[in-house]
Amino acid sequence: MNTVQSTCCVTFAPAERSITVKKNSSLIQAARKAGLHINASCGGAGVCGKCKIIVEQGTVLGGESAKLSRKDYNNGYRQACTTEIIEDVKIRIPEESGRQKGGLSTDIPPRHRAKMHIFNIDDLKRTGIFYPPVEKLRLELLKPTANDNRADVGRLIQGLADQHNKHRLVTDLPVLRKIRRALREKDFLVTVTLEQPVNNRSKCHLLNIQPGRWDHRNFGLAVDIGTTTIHGVLIDLHSGKILAKSSCYNPQMSYGEDVIARIIYAEKPKGLVMMQELVVESINGLINNMLGEVTLPNADDKRCSPIDRDEITSITIAGNTTMTHLFLQLEPDNIRRSPYVPVSTFFPPMRAADLGLELSRHCAALLYPAISSYVGGDIVAGVMGSGMYRTELLTLFIDVGTNAEIVIGNREWLACAACSAGPAFEGGGITHGMRAVEGAISDFSINPETLEPMNVTEGNKAPIGICGSGLLIIVATLFEHGIINPSGKFNNLGTPRIRKGRSGQEYVLAWEDECAADHDIVLNEVDIDNFIRAKAAIFAGVSTLLDQVGLQVSDLEQVILAGGFGSFIDLDSAMTVGLLPEVDPDKILYVGNGSLMGAWMSELSNHIRQDVVSVVRKMTSFELSEVPDFKDQYIASIFLPHTDLSLFPNAINRRVSCPLQSAGNTPAADRQGNSFNTKIT
Amino acid sequence: MNTVQSTCCVTFAPAERSITVKKNSSLIQAARKAGLHINASCGGAGVCGKCKIIVEQGTVLGGESAKLSRKDYNNGYRQACTTEIIEDVKIRIPEESGRQKGGLSTDIPPRHRAKMHIFNIDDLKRTGIFYPPVEKLRLELLKPTANDNRADVGRLIQGLADQHNKHRLVTDLPVLRKIRRALREKDFLVTVTLEQPVNNRSKCHLLNIQPGRWDHRNFGLAVDIGTTTIHGVLIDLHSGKILAKSSCYNPQMSYGEDVIARIIYAEKPKGLVMMQELVVESINGLINNMLGEVTLPNADDKRCSPIDRDEITSITIAGNTTMTHLFLQLEPDNIRRSPYVPVSTFFPPMRAADLGLELSRHCAALLYPAISSYVGGDIVAGVMGSGMYRTELLTLFIDVGTNAEIVIGNREWLACAACSAGPAFEGGGITHGMRAVEGAISDFSINPETLEPMNVTEGNKAPIGICGSGLLIIVATLFEHGIINPSGKFNNLGTPRIRKGRSGQEYVLAWEDECAADHDIVLNEVDIDNFIRAKAAIFAGVSTLLDQVGLQVSDLEQVILAGGFGSFIDLDSAMTVGLLPEVDPDKILYVGNGSLMGAWMSELSNHIRQDVVSVVRKMTSFELSEVPDFKDQYIASIFLPHTDLSLFPNAINRRVSCPLQSAGNTPAADRQGNSFNTKIT
Repeated sequence: MNTVQSTCCVTFAPAERSITVKKNSSLIQAARKAGLHINASCGGAGVCGKCKIIVEQGTVLGGESAKLSRKDYNNGYRQACTTEIIEDVKIRIPEESGRQKGGLSTDIPPRHRAKMHIFNIDDLKRTGIFYPPVEKLRLELLKPTANDNRADVGRLIQGLADQHNKHRLVTDLPVLRKIRRALREKDFLVTVTLEQPVNNRSKCHLLNIQPGRWDHRNFGLAVDIGTTTIHGVLIDLHSGKILAKSSCYNPQMSYGEDVIARIIYAEKPKGLVMMQELVVESINGLINNMLGEVTLPNADDKRCSPIDRDEITSITIAGNTTMTHLFLQLEPDNIRRSPYVPVSTFFPPMRAADLGLELSRHCAALLYPAISSYVGGDIVAGVMGSGMYRTELLTLFIDVGTNAEIVIGNREWLACAACSAGPAFEGGGITHGMRAVEGAISDFSINPETLEPMNVTEGNKAPIGICGSGLLIIVATLFEHGIINPSGKFNNLGTPRIRKGRSGQEYVLAWEDECAADHDIVLNEVDIDNFIRAKAAIFAGVSTLLDQVGLQVSDLEQVILAGGFGSFIDLDSAMTVGLLPEVDPDKILYVGNGSLMGAWMSELSNHIRQDVVSVVRKMTSFELSEVPDFKDQYIASIFLPHTDLSLFPNAINRRVSCPLQSAGNTPAADRQGNSFNTKIT
Repeated sequence: MNTVQSTCCVTFAPAERSITVKKNSSLIQAARKAGLHINASCGGAGVCGKCKIIVEQGTVLGGESAKLSRKDYNNGYRQACTTEIIEDVKIRIPEESGRQKGGLSTDIPPRHRAKMHIFNIDDLKRTGIFYPPVEKLRLELLKPTANDNRADVGRLIQGLADQHNKHRLVTDLPVLRKIRRALREKDFLVTVTLEQPVNNRSKCHLLNIQPGRWDHRNFGLAVDIGTTTIHGVLIDLHSGKILAKSSCYNPQMSYGEDVIARIIYAEKPKGLVMMQELVVESINGLINNMLGEVTLPNADDKRCSPIDRDEITSITIAGNTTMTHLFLQLEPDNIRRSPYVPVSTFFPPMRAADLGLELSRHCAALLYPAISSYVGGDIVAGVMGSGMYRTELLTLFIDVGTNAEIVIGNREWLACAACSAGPAFEGGGITHGMRAVEGAISDFSINPETLEPMNVTEGNKAPIGICGSGLLIIVATLFEHGIINPSGKFNNLGTPRIRKGRSGQEYVLAWEDECAADHDIVLNEVDIDNFIRAKAAIFAGVSTLLDQVGLQVSDLEQVILAGGFGSFIDLDSAMTVGLLPEVDPDKILYVGNGSLMGAWMSELSNHIRQDVVSVVRKMTSFELSEVPDFKDQYIASIFLPHTDLSLFPNAINRRVSCPLQSAGNTPAADRQGNSFNTKIT
C-alpha cells in the first residue's frame, strides 16, 4: 500500500534559499539538499549539539537536546539533526552552526547523482520482447477413439503443434510417467510447462504437465550471487511483475572477504562443498522469505492463496566467475593463479533441484555465462539488463567494487576488462571504513573556515565509520577545499580537526563522544592513499581499454554505472578525484544491481536469453596485466585527479577557496597559477 | 576356444542312404537328418527300447539298454537314441524299428529350415555404417598461457572441433566438475566420451572425460526384454565384436504369462514398481554375468584385465510396448483396453543409471521406439536389425509368438499390424505343452503303418511335453499322413496310439513309462484346435495386411522370420498347416532375435540409430480389429491348411499315404479325388 506523500517547503535564512522536501525529513537533510552546510559531527544522534538552527516560521517536531537550554528552545532554537519537518517552515542558520564569518552561508558544491535506469515491463510487452523462457500453455485435446489411438505423448505433441505452434519437443522420464494420468484427470484438459529452446536449433523442453487449467500461475526467480550480498526477486511470469524481493549477506564472507580468500578456502578439504552449501542455503532462505510474503487472488474467486513452491518453473542466476564456480561446485583454483583460467564460462541448462535448491525438479535453472575469470556473469547480466547490448550509443559500463569490471562498446561490438581496485570502495583497507549500513558516514560537507564537518549518516544514527560513498565525498571535499593536496597529503592548516596520527596526518570526522564508536573517527593519509590507488586502478583500466579500442573519453556517448557502490556515487566527487572520466553528468545512467536486472530480464524474455550467447561471443576480453601501457596509466592516475590535468578540464572549477590555506603547502593546481573561486552553478 | 570339429559318414541300410554328421552325434539325429524314420518314443532316454539298429561296419559308443539282450548286443544291435557316432559306420534299420512292411524304409518328408541371416561387422565397417553412437576420442591440448587463457571447457571444445571435427556440444554439471582435474592429471592429454546427436539438428553430448588415453576401451550393451526371456550382449565398441552373451527368464513371468496378465498386475498398488524392479534386477544380473566372463589384453602389456563397469558407455534396449512401459515404469493400463493407447511410443535419450541399471552415470541409454500398443520396439528393432528397412525386396517380416507382429514393405514404405495368436506356439494352452527346454519334443516323425512315433527331444532327454516347434511338426505330420483331417479331428484309424481322451480323440506320443512325466504324453483335438486358431490368426493377419496394401502372396520377394519360435520353425510344416503362406523356402530368412539384433546394430551405428526415427515415421500401423475383412479371413483360415486351397497349390504334394487310412473318415483333400502318394524329393 502506498501512502500519499506530502511535501513541505523549507526556506533557509540568511541565504534566502527555498527547497521542497518530503514531510518528516530531518532539517539536516533539507539543508544538505539546499546546498547549505550545517556543522554536524554526530550524524543525527543529537549529541554534538553543533547543528543549532532557529525556527522563524512554522512548527517542527523534535529538535530538543541536552546541549540546548530551555531558554534557547523557547526562542525557537532546535538541533537540526533531530528536527523533523511537518509543514512549511522558515529556518535561520546561525553563524556558529556553519555560516562563514561575515554572514555568508557556507555552500556545499552542487552534487549530481546518476539518472536511475527504469526498467519497463510494458515496453517489453509492446515490443514483443516479453516472452518468458518457461511458459505454461493450456491444451484441450481430443479423447482417443478406435480411429485415433495415438499414444498419449503423440497426442500431446500434436496438440502443442496445432494449438500453440510448438514443434520439436524433448522431455524426460519423470514427465513421461505423469502424462497418462494428467490427461485423464480433467478430461484431456491439461497445462504443460514448456522451456523454450536456448537457440533456434534446439528443442523445446517439456518440463511438466498438470491436469486442468494452470496457465495463469507461472512464477520465476532471478538471483544475483554477489560477493557481499545475495539478492533475489520473485516474478509473476504471467504478468511480468515482481511479487517479492529479498536479500541477505553472502555467508561465505565469514570465510573470506574477497573472491581470492574464498578460492583459497575452497581449496581446503571439503571447502568447496561448504562454500556451495552456504550459498545454496542462502538462496533457499530467500526463496522461503519471498514465498512467505506473497499471496495472489485466485482466478475463480476473490480469495488469495500463497504460491506453491512447485509453481516456480524457472530460475536465472548471475554472479561473478568465482561465485558461479563456487555455486556450481566447480573448482575455482585456477581463477586466482596466472594465467587465470576458469573451468568454464558457459554453463549448460540445468535443473534447480540438481543444484540443491529447494525447488521442484521441473524447475529449469540457467546460469549467466561469463567472459573470463574476472569478467563474470554478473557483468554479462549487467550488459543485458542495462540494455547496453542493444544501444547504438557508444557506452562505458563500469561496475565498481573490489574488482572493477569495465565494458566499452555498443550493439555492434563490446570490449571488456577487469581490474583489481581493492576493497576501499566497500570500506575495506580504510582505518574506520565500513559497509553502507546504519551509522556509516555516507555524505559530508565542511565549513572551510572552521573545518567543522557536516556528517550525514545512514539512518541518521551516530557515526560508526565511513562507507565507500562517504569516503569518496570526504576525499573529494577535502581536496576541493585544498585541505589535502593532489598526492593526498594534508596541507598544514593548524586546526584541531587535523592532527598527527599513527598513519600520518589525519582529519577527525567525529570525536569519540559524538559517535557510536569508542574512538574518534578519522581519515588518515594511509586511508587516502588506499583510496587513490583504488580509483587509479579503475581510471587506468578505463583509459587503457579506451586506448586498446582506439577511442577517447570524448567519444563516449553514455556511461552506465552498476553495482551497490554505483547507486550512491556522487558524480561530481568522482570526477573531482579522477575516479570517473569527465563526462556530462546527463550522460551517466545508474542501473543499480545490473546482475540482478539481467537475471530478471532473462526470466521475462527468451529473446534476451538467446541473445546472451551472441553477446558473450561479441565481448572481447582484454587482460590488462598483459597490456604494457596499463602500468603507466596507473602510475599517472595516482594523483588527485590525475597527473595529466588536460584529462580533467573542469577540475579547476570544482575547487573552492579555503581561507585557512597555508602558503607553504600549495596544491599542484595552485602552483599552476589557477585561482580558487567559489563557483555556484 | 574353438575345438576342431570332425565329421563322420553314416550309411543306412537297406535304404543305402549316406549322410555326414558331426562326431558325437546320436544315431537318431543322424537318421533324422537322413530323412529316415526310426521308432523312438522315449526321446533318447533309452527306456522304450524301440529304436534298435544294427551296426554293420565301424565302431560306435554306447547304445546299451536293459531292453537289449547280451546276445543282441554282441550281434551288433544298439539303441539308436543312446548310440554316439565316433567314426564312419554302416547301420541297418531293422523292420521292427520303423521300416514299412516289405523292407522299404519309412521316409520323413524333406524339411526346410530358413536360411540364417548372418550379421557382418566387416560389412558395416566397409560401408561406413560402423560408427558407434557413443565414441571415445583422445585429445591432446595445448596448456594455458597468459596469451591463451581460455576456460578449460572452451579449450576442450576447440580441441574437439580442431582434432575431431566435432561441433555443437552440450554437457552437464557432473562432467563440468571433472574437467579441470582431468585436463591436468596427464598433462592435457584426455579421452572424452561423446554421444553423437540422435539427429543432425541436435548436439553432441559430452558424457565423460578421463585423464590420459582410453579411446581403445569403450564398451556397449544391447538388451532385448522379451516377455519370456531377457537377452543381453556385451559389445566392444572399438572393434564391433561381441564379447559376451547372457540371457535369463523374464522374472515377471511369475506374475503373468502374457503381457495382459502383467498389465493387470501392474495396476495393483506397487505392482508397476515391482514389475520394473524385476526386469531391472535381471538386466543387472546379465551385466554382472557378462562382465564376469570377459578379460581383455591391455594395450601396453600382454596381461589381461577385466572390463570395468564404468567403461560401459552405452546401452540400447528393445522390447515390446508393454515390456518397455513396465521397464520405464510407465503405466501400461490403456494398452490392454480399447482403443489400446500406450503412454508413449518414443522415448527420450536417457541415462542408464536413471533407469536403475548398475551402470555409470555417464552411460547413455536408448530405448527403441514403438509403433503402437502391439507393434513394439522389438519389431522396430527387428526391422532395423534384419535390414528390412533398407532392402529393395518386397518383404514380409513375421515375429511369431503369443502376439504375432507382421510388417510388410521395403525401404520405401512399411505397413504393420499385430494379432493375438495365443500362447500355443510357446507351449501354452496345449495339454502337454511346454517351452523349448530339455525334454521338450521338438521334432517328430511317424511310421505310417504302425503310427509308432520318432520323438526327438531337446537335449535327447526323456520327453516331458511338446514345445511350439514340436507341436507344429506333429500337427503337420499327422495331417500329411491323413491321421487328422482339415478340421483337426482324428480319422478313425483304430490303433492303440489313437484313443478317446478327456478332450476328444488323442494321439499318444509317449507312454508314461517311456517319459519323464507321470502320465502319457498326448496331443488331443482341443490342443489341435488351439493350434489351428493360433496359426489362423497369423495367416489371417498376413492376408489382411497384404490386402490392405493391395498385394498378394506371390508379390513377396522375401520373408523374414524372427523370434524364438522362428528359429526352429520347419518351413514345410508351416506351409502344410497354413501358418505361413506358400513361398519358395529359399526366399525365407531367419534373423533369430531381431529385437536383440536391432539393439546391437544401434550400438554399432549412429546412422542406424538416426534412421530409426524415419523408419518409425514410415511405418503405417493397421489395427486389424478395425478391418472388417479380418474376421472373415480368420474364419477361412481355421482349417488345415485353409478353406481356399488355391492359396496352397503345393499342399497336395506334401500329403503322404497312410496305409491305416479308414474309408469312413476321409480328409477333404481325399474327397476331392487326390491320391496319396509317397513323394520323395
